[in-house]
Order: sequence, then C-alpha cells, then structure tokens
Amino acid sequence: MIRPVILAGGGGARLWPLSRTGNPKQFHALVGDQSLLQATLQRCGGPNFHPPLLSTAEDQRFFVVDQLEEARVTPAAILLEPVARNTGPAIAAAAFWALARGEDEPLLVMPSDHLIEDTAAFQEAIDLAFPSASAGELLTFGIRPTRAHTGYGYIETSADDDGAPVRRVEKFVEKPDLARAEQFVKDGGYYWNSGIFLLRPSAYVRELKLHAPEIATHVEQAMRGASADAPFLRPDRDAFAAAPNLSIDYAVLEKSDRVRVVPVDFAWSDVGSWEAVHDILGADEQGNVLKGDVLALDVRDSLIRSDADVTVAAVGLERILCVITEDAAFIAPLDRAQEVRNVVEELRGRGHSRADEPARVHRPWGTYQTVDRGDRFQTKRIIVKPGGKLSLQKHKHRSEHWVVVSGTAEVTVGEKTSLLEENQSTYIPAGTPHRLANPGTVPLHLVEVQCGSYLGEDDIVRLEDVYGRS
Amino acid sequence: MIRPVILAGGGGARLWPLSRTGNPKQFHALVGDQSLLQATLQRCGGPNFHPPLLSTAEDQRFFVVDQLEEARVTPAAILLEPVARNTGPAIAAAAFWALARGEDEPLLVMPSDHLIEDTAAFQEAIDLAFPSASAGELLTFGIRPTRAHTGYGYIETSADDDGAPVRRVEKFVEKPDLARAEQFVKDGGYYWNSGIFLLRPSAYVRELKLHAPEIATHVEQAMRGASADAPFLRPDRDAFAAAPNLSIDYAVLEKSDRVRVVPVDFAWSDVGSWEAVHDILGADEQGNVLKGDVLALDVRDSLIRSDADVTVAAVGLERILCVITEDAAFIAPLDRAQEVRNVVEELRGRGHSRADEPARVHRPWGTYQTVDRGDRFQTKRIIVKPGGKLSLQKHKHRSEHWVVVSGTAEVTVGEKTSLLEENQSTYIPAGTPHRLANPGTVPLHLVEVQCGSYLGEDDIVRLEDVYGRS
Repeated sequence: MIRPVILAGGGGARLWPLSRTGNPKQFHALVGDQSLLQATLQRCGGPNFHPPLLSTAEDQRFFVVDQLEEARVTPAAILLEPVARNTGPAIAAAAFWALARGEDEPLLVMPSDHLIEDTAAFQEAIDLAFPSASAGELLTFGIRPTRAHTGYGYIETSADDDGAPVRRVEKFVEKPDLARAEQFVKDGGYYWNSGIFLLRPSAYVRELKLHAPEIATHVEQAMRGASADAPFLRPDRDAFAAAPNLSIDYAVLEKSDRVRVVPVDFAWSDVGSWEAVHDILGADEQGNVLKGDVLALDVRDSLIRSDADVTVAAVGLERILCVITEDAAFIAPLDRAQEVRNVVEELRGRGHSRADEPARVHRPWGTYQTVDRGDRFQTKRIIVKPGGKLSLQKHKHRSEHWVVVSGTAEVTVGEKTSLLEENQSTYIPAGTPHRLANPGTVPLHLVEVQCGSYLGEDDIVRLEDVYGRS
Repeated sequence: MIRPVILAGGGGARLWPLSRTGNPKQFHALVGDQSLLQATLQRCGGPNFHPPLLSTAEDQRFFVVDQLEEARVTPAAILLEPVARNTGPAIAAAAFWALARGEDEPLLVMPSDHLIEDTAAFQEAIDLAFPSASAGELLTFGIRPTRAHTGYGYIETSADDDGAPVRRVEKFVEKPDLARAEQFVKDGGYYWNSGIFLLRPSAYVRELKLHAPEIATHVEQAMRGASADAPFLRPDRDAFAAAPNLSIDYAVLEKSDRVRVVPVDFAWSDVGSWEAVHDILGADEQGNVLKGDVLALDVRDSLIRSDADVTVAAVGLERILCVITEDAAFIAPLDRAQEVRNVVEELRGRGHSRADEPARVHRPWGTYQTVDRGDRFQTKRIIVKPGGKLSLQKHKHRSEHWVVVSGTAEVTVGEKTSLLEENQSTYIPAGTPHRLANPGTVPLHLVEVQCGSYLGEDDIVRLEDVYGRS
C-alpha cells in the first residue's frame, strides 16, 4: 500500500489573473471540469492507496476542505504548515507523521498543481518504482523531454543503467539555458525532474539525518509538538520555523547516493505558465485554445479565455495570450507570458488589491463577490455552503438588505431568528447584531445590498464565530 | 447669423464594443469629458449662431434629449427621420424646415461624431465661407491632408484658384488607394472631404431641383406633412421613404458647379476607427494611449482602454488595440482595427445581443444594467432621471425586490403609492401592477433583484406609459 502526500500550499501568480495568492492555481479547473488538486486526488485513488495526507497553508485550509468535499475524498489528515519552508521540511513533516502512526509504507509525494492526464501510465510508473522504494531508495520520476524546455530542472541518469526501468542518478541539473537543454535532448539520458517522489518515511529521514540534519531535528520536534484539530494538524510553529528553508532536491536528492529515477513517457506539465497551458490544451486547427464566449477571426496559435460574462473578440493575432476575468485582464505575446510576474509585482508595489485578491473571496462558510458598487452602496452575491454559518456580527456604518434568491437562510436580526426562503428578504439596520446561516442541504445564494457612508470589509465587529475568528 | 444643423443619427459599429447601434459613438466621451455630440454643440455656440436643429432617428431621440439637457442647449427642433435616407434627404429636410419658417440664412451642416478641437480656427473658417454661402454657393470645408489617408474622400481644387481662401472644386474623389493618396499629398491641391457644409436653404433646394429633383419633391412633401411634438418633428413617413437614399456628395456636390471649398488646416478626424482614436489622442512617450485602470509594461504605440471596473495588464505589445467594456472586449493589431466590422457582422449572424445592444440599456426614463445573474434570478442597477417615470406594468413570471440606494423613489404597488428614500426597500409580487418614478431633482439609483422562472425583458405587460409605449 502507498500513502499519497499532496503538497497543496502556496503560489499561483504565474497564472494571474485567473490564479492569485488568494485563490491559487491548484484550486482552478484549468483543464476539464476538475481542479488540478482534484485531478491529483483522483490520480492516487484505487485499491493500492491509503487516504491521502494533504499539506497546505493555514489560510488555504478551507479551499482544500471544499475541494476534498467536492471530490468526495476523506483525507487521512491535513497538515497546516505554520510557515512556508519549502519541500524539504514539508515532506519531512509527512514522514514523521507516518512514522508516529507506526507506518513505514512508501509515501507518494506529489505537487497538487501538476497535470498528468494518463492515470494508467502514471500508476504503472508507480508500480515500477515500488520495489526500489520499499527497499529504501528515494525514487524520483523523470519525464522524457519532448522539447528543449528551459523552465524545468533535468535529471541526468547513469549511462551504465541505459534501458533499465529504475536507474541511478548521475546528477541533478538546474534549469538550463537553451543550448544546454538542446544538448540534453540530443544526448538522451536526461529527464525532466517532475517533483514527484516515492519514498519510505524511514528512508527519507535516514537521508535527511545524513545530509540535512537540521531539517530532521526541527521538523521531528515540530511534529512531536503538533496540535490536532481534525482533520487539521498544526506542527509547532517555532520548531517548524527553525527548519532551514530548502527544497528536497537541494537538501537531500542532490547529495544522497540512494536516489533513483524511473524514466517515464507520459505527458506531464507543471502548468507553470500560460504558455504551458496553451501547450497542454488541445489546440484547434488554427493552433488556438479558446475558452468561454470568444470569437477569433484570423487568429493563430493563441490562447484566448473569457473567464467572465464578457464576450471577447480577437482579430489578426498570432501567438497572443489574452485572459479576461471578472475584474482583471492580461494580454501579452505567449512567449512572454511568464512576465506576468512583473505585472503582479508592479501591482503589489502600487498596493493594488487585485495583485493577490480574487474577485470571489473565499471564507470558511462560503464565498462573496462584489457585483456592483456606486456612491454610498455596493451589491454583493453571497453563497453560503450547506451548514455554513457566518459570524454573529454588526457594522457601524452600513445597513444591509438581503434577498434570498436560492436555498434557505436562517437569519438572526437582533433577538429574532427566522427562516427565509427563495424570493424573501430582510433588512439589517446599522448597529444591529445579525447572523446568516444555511441550515439546508443545498447552497444558499443571497443578494446583499449595502447602504452607508463607509463600506470597507473592516467595518465588522465579530461577536461570535464558529470558525474561531471572533 | 447661421443655423447649425447637426446630423446625429445612425451608426457606431466601427468603435465596437464601446460604441454599438444601441448607443453609438456620437454619444460617447471619446476625448475629454464631453461626448462627440456635445463637443459639436459647443463648437457652434456663440453670438453668430441660432439654436441648433438636430436630425436623428426615432430610437435615438432620448439620447439626444439627454445630451442636450446635460449640455444645457435648447434646440430649435429635433427632426426625427422616419427611415434612414442618407445626407441628401436629411439636409433637404433641414432646408425645407428653415424655408417653412421664412428663414434663408446659411445652414452649418455638421456630423455629430467628428472631432475638431480648435474651435477658434473652425469658426474662422466659417467666417471665410460665409460671404460665398450667403451669395448662394454650396460651401464645403477641405482639410489639408497630414498623411496619405485611404479612409477619406478627397476634394481636388482648381489650380487657377491656388492660394485663394475660397476655391472652386475640380472634382470629388472617393476613398483612394494608397498610391493615389500619396500622389494627392505630393501634388497638393487635394483636401480631405470633411462632410461639413455651409449653404443657404434656397441654394441647396435650387441645386437639388437641378440634380436630384426626386429628393426635393419627396422631402418637401414629407416636411409639409410633418407632425410636431415639440421639440420633436416627424416628417411624413411614406413621403420621406420615397426619397432616394443618396449622400449630398453623390446627389448634388459632384454635379453642381456652385460648389466651393474652403481649405483649412485645423486638426480634424471623423473618429472612424480605433486607429483614428489612437491618432487623435495624445500618446505618451512610448506612443501609447492608455485609459482607465491599465498597466502597460514594455508596450509601444498601442491603445489600451479599460471602460469597466477591470484592471488591464499588458506586456510586450506593439501597435495593439485592446478595449475592454463591462460585457465585451476587442483585441487586434491597430492597423487591422477596422476589421471590427467583421466581428460585429459575425456576432449579428450568431444572434448575439452584444453585437448591437450595450450593457447599459437606455430608456426614455433613464437606464438599466444587469450586474449579476444566476439560476432563477438577476440583479440590475436602475437609474431614473429626475421626473422620469416607468410604465405602469406587471410581470407574469418574476417578482422584484427594489432597494433605493440614492435619491427618492415614488413607488406604486397595487393600489398603494409611497415614497422610498435611500436605504429603504419594497417588494413587488409577480402579477401585481407596479410603477416606479423619480419625483426628485437628483437621479434615483435603485438595485433591483428579480426572482422567478423566466426573467426575459419581454415578460412585461405595460398598462400605461407617459412615453407612449403602452
């Protein structure tokens, strides 16, 4: 049996504006109907796999919970990293978690935001790797390069092992320039480093103690002091923070002689740029990938997406990226799409909220989104999950009008609690304590019209909260 | 004294998606804060000018009224063309209108959607033209070409008149190819045909009777049978429709020997394409024209507009047009921006409402705009002008919740009429007759949440309407 470990924290600016820090790429359906995280969950289903351990950040925990629920997956636990410390410590935490349970079966460590569509081929590769991993080697998976990609690290295999299903590693090569990448492809024996690993907890800890003992010490201590709040598990903050911020590659793989690689041929992508998204998705006869309400006339080799209720018309473009969401758009040559990082940095520098905050804001109880705003008012769409319950709260400067448009709301205004059905409304005067909950079994959709002189999110006094936010 | 005649009907697809049939370009502030129509009104203010006569289409009359009100201009009349018949008949209607009032002072005929920023130079040119126009010549204004433009018609002047302020016309030349246009600029004596005219009503009618007698006959009859509904004047439909659909150029100017041209040097544009908009507006050091919340990194010679609450980021573009409105976007090389007509045609072919309908829909009483929609509901922002009054109406399939967010509403629901102030709301059950009016002196803003199984605009029974729509 194998224990999947899914690394679901962090990142997301590389696919701005669709993906932002406040709603990063692993939670988006970039290909098909499932998010990248959900596709990753599905990839490690089946009789050979234990329920997965997920690792994420504190402020992304409700995304992960929502996505697990949607995918009907019950996790073994959700490890909340108190601070981001890269993959070396993250995988160490998973290893100590397993060992503490008395488990030492191989962990299948996977980033949550990669794309592998051929699940059968993937599971075959795992089967190939399993005996070596069980024997205490650290197994990596090397993707046979389809082109001289400069955005990936490479694994050079030992020439002696040529043709073997499991090979020794000569060395790890960081992202090469184009000339070297072309040489790698020509020479053969070089593989893209997929960031997917199969390793026994004891084997990883053994190698950690040899090559990065500080990680082993501090993470072991952090896990010993972890506090449980099922399904969440929080390692001790100070101990975890003391661990060096290192990737597994740098901390262990580049140094250990117990690393092996399984060369594989299946299509894989780290979905690390808009250009990668264009490459992955099936282009039409003109080489275009179009999504949403898009009209493209004489357009070639382009990626044009409307992720909002916006009609996008393009004429005479070649190798252009154009992504339009409800509150932001990005246009660039596909070959320069990775410069979106400069956009995000520039917006952050200007204090622009859209650098990191998505239009639809996720909360433990559901989501909200501003759909209109004007002088002294704004209109929001609020969606409350079944069982979701907002805090008991009040506002100093604004009154609120709520109209239930779908589902059932349990509404408390002052001392009175009542149920509102579709097409019913209520009014909450400024200063009055109130609370909104969804007692039903389907999502509750509500239109909220706020009136007042100040409408900022910070005009909120939380009197009581089931999610520990008051 | 001079009587301005402003032709404010028609068109608008060339600046899609900002300008659409349902809200065409003359009503938009493309440069500065005023719309092109309002800038045209301002250009013919001052002591030498009578109040203007406006000519427009029936379904654009409330736009024109709104814009006149905003500009604080009281028109002499607003002529509503029952069918579009091009400039020959439109100017004929203005001429017969003047003659019927016993006026024969020169008419200054101007399209409402051209741009001339130097009003002083423009009025100087009018002064130069005035004596000849008063003497019965038909005066045109020829713009000295600044480049070999292939999108304009040219006027060739007589070589004998070289240097004279008012010159005879050798001939009118339709839009030339680039080689000919370059030759015109090189040769000199060729001017862009601005579509602005100064002519006495009697002189125009005289030339019409010589060269296009059918226009004279039918339009004279249409004006004799016109019905007045001040400030509107409606020519008889059948008679007007019988007039040939011809431009003044084709019907008269190319044939008459009484045509003269005043060469002028001021900057002029027909704002006939997005490329023209880029040329007109002052570009920054990188040659860019940026409007709204736009971030441009390493972008050159481009026009990027955000006409919505959308952050637009662009990287690495050159001579690209990108216009984003609340419900549509258009991206193309600037040099191919005129192909937007293919976009509009294609969208029309697909029955796409956004080909012609703007996001904000104009009605005689004000505007409305859908800001959110979902399963069985939609949310609108409604703005009612001071004094505006919607029809007494009912809906079969939807209920409505109204929240006043600014101004005062007079609300009738069933038998009851009441006043709602900011932050008050009401509910209108399906099937109940209701009416909304703004009795105040400032605009009324209202958020409407509709709930029901069918939410189309055609679910409306109008029981009574002050604008004659019931």
